[in-house]
Amino acid sequence: MPSEVIAEPIANLRSFFADCRAAVDAELGRLVPAEEVRPSSVHQAIRWSLFAGGKRFRPALLVAVGRTLGAAPADLLLSACAFEMIHTYSLIHDDLPSMDDDDLRRGRPTCHVRFGEATATLAGDALQALAFQTISEDELLPAEVRVQVISELARGAGTPLGMVAGQAHDLEAESRDVDGNELEGIHQLKTGALIVAAARSGAIIARADDATSAAITDYASGLGLLFQITDDLLDVTATAQDLGKTPGKDARAQKATYPALYGIEATRQHALEIHEKTTTALKDIQPSTALLSAIADFILQRNA
Amino acid sequence: MPSEVIAEPIANLRSFFADCRAAVDAELGRLVPAEEVRPSSVHQAIRWSLFAGGKRFRPALLVAVGRTLGAAPADLLLSACAFEMIHTYSLIHDDLPSMDDDDLRRGRPTCHVRFGEATATLAGDALQALAFQTISEDELLPAEVRVQVISELARGAGTPLGMVAGQAHDLEAESRDVDGNELEGIHQLKTGALIVAAARSGAIIARADDATSAAITDYASGLGLLFQITDDLLDVTATAQDLGKTPGKDARAQKATYPALYGIEATRQHALEIHEKTTTALKDIQPSTALLSAIADFILQRNA
Repeated sequence: MPSEVIAEPIANLRSFFADCRAAVDAELGRLVPAEEVRPSSVHQAIRWSLFAGGKRFRPALLVAVGRTLGAAPADLLLSACAFEMIHTYSLIHDDLPSMDDDDLRRGRPTCHVRFGEATATLAGDALQALAFQTISEDELLPAEVRVQVISELARGAGTPLGMVAGQAHDLEAESRDVDGNELEGIHQLKTGALIVAAARSGAIIARADDATSAAITDYASGLGLLFQITDDLLDVTATAQDLGKTPGKDARAQKATYPALYGIEATRQHALEIHEKTTTALKDIQPSTALLSAIADFILQRNA
Repeated sequence: MPSEVIAEPIANLRSFFADCRAAVDAELGRLVPAEEVRPSSVHQAIRWSLFAGGKRFRPALLVAVGRTLGAAPADLLLSACAFEMIHTYSLIHDDLPSMDDDDLRRGRPTCHVRFGEATATLAGDALQALAFQTISEDELLPAEVRVQVISELARGAGTPLGMVAGQAHDLEAESRDVDGNELEGIHQLKTGALIVAAARSGAIIARADDATSAAITDYASGLGLLFQITDDLLDVTATAQDLGKTPGKDARAQKATYPALYGIEATRQHALEIHEKTTTALKDIQPSTALLSAIADFILQRNA
């Protein structure tokens, strides 16, 4: 049972991430139709993008929040997989020529380069449907919990307050100057909303009370912002080897980023402040939020 | 209350369709963010395609099955809207240049022609998320019913047995000859699966027993096939004015169609046989399936 892996005591954060990733990958492998199942093109394309070496950050966050608040590990696994499906579909569609037009992701050709635009579009569409199907059919959770997680995921993925809205804001902003507030607003939607929804879903599955859910929301909002700031920093400071992609791409694309707006040093300072706010949000949660604090520390210090 | 409209006695099929469409359109207008809500581009694009004069056939079928089996009309409305959102997202994505590359739909520029490919892609993505959100938050239905409808919709929309799979099969088949069996298989997925899911969702909301659900599944499978056969026939026999689009497009695109494979007369005969099977599936359902039979008659005889 892969779900038992994530029930073991946490030796350290790195092994938590590794165990979580192994459990999620194994379950995703079962949930997605095999490559030879027809229509083979779409299933190959889905697996190409879903098993491309992703860090499974959103699933890990959902599991970490759920475990911290007392949920049974097995109860978290399918919802965690659903969030990864939505994240992966968004990467496939964002890479399309009409969107960000990226040829490479994690050192490999992007989905549409490998399988063509039509198949990539359909692979993303199918992954979105499969995400909601997966939660709706999760027999370990009461239906009342399933519909709450589906609502969270759909709002975090959609519009006007989710990921698709963020991508649309970003496209609208490409043609003009963006200030710091607007940049933060775009990031909060484009990457933050799904991260917050993942954390809140962990809390929903753990049947957290309203005060705890609100604290988790604050924590995850900070974490999402921190994730984006350090992503921007890595784009200007990391080596290609660390990053698995070409650094400096944002600057060449004249994208609005924190370093471009504030400079590297001020951006590092901003990251420290956001990290402080993020961990402070956890102060009233009992018994131990060590795992969640460790995740915030990890994001602050990450080099890839 | 727009849902009361569909509670009125059915004077005839045409007024049933009209009442249903009015109720669905009003509710869709409330469910989708207003055009001025940011990001405005996506909300304009969604509304452009959602309110383009669609017949609301899938919502009407869901409502007709649900009412026939005793569901309260108000309980059917949000699920009906969700099916229309999925249908509309699929039209937006199917029209994209990388897919069917259509510039006109219902006499107007398609979504990507009007708003650009990126915004059209995002509008489709957002509509899919909103469909599942809408059902998950339908407080008139017990959570247990909501998750069953979400599962039906997701399977009917996705892969390997839903709409996306059908579109992928269709794309794969474009480069080679297709026989009658394969054509029927493609249609069953591409248009049939969502039609069947809509009908089955009406039965789920009405808490139908297994035998009744099975009969509804047979009925809707026949109806979906009949819908596609008459669609193919209209493409070769109807006038542009009736159709609201240019007829003969399939033939010029060398698409596999029933008339292309069997000729017009044999295709008409096939439609009559499928109609017979479709209505026969209803024979054991009590008390009256007059509305469902009338819908099958309507599809057989439609001229647009």
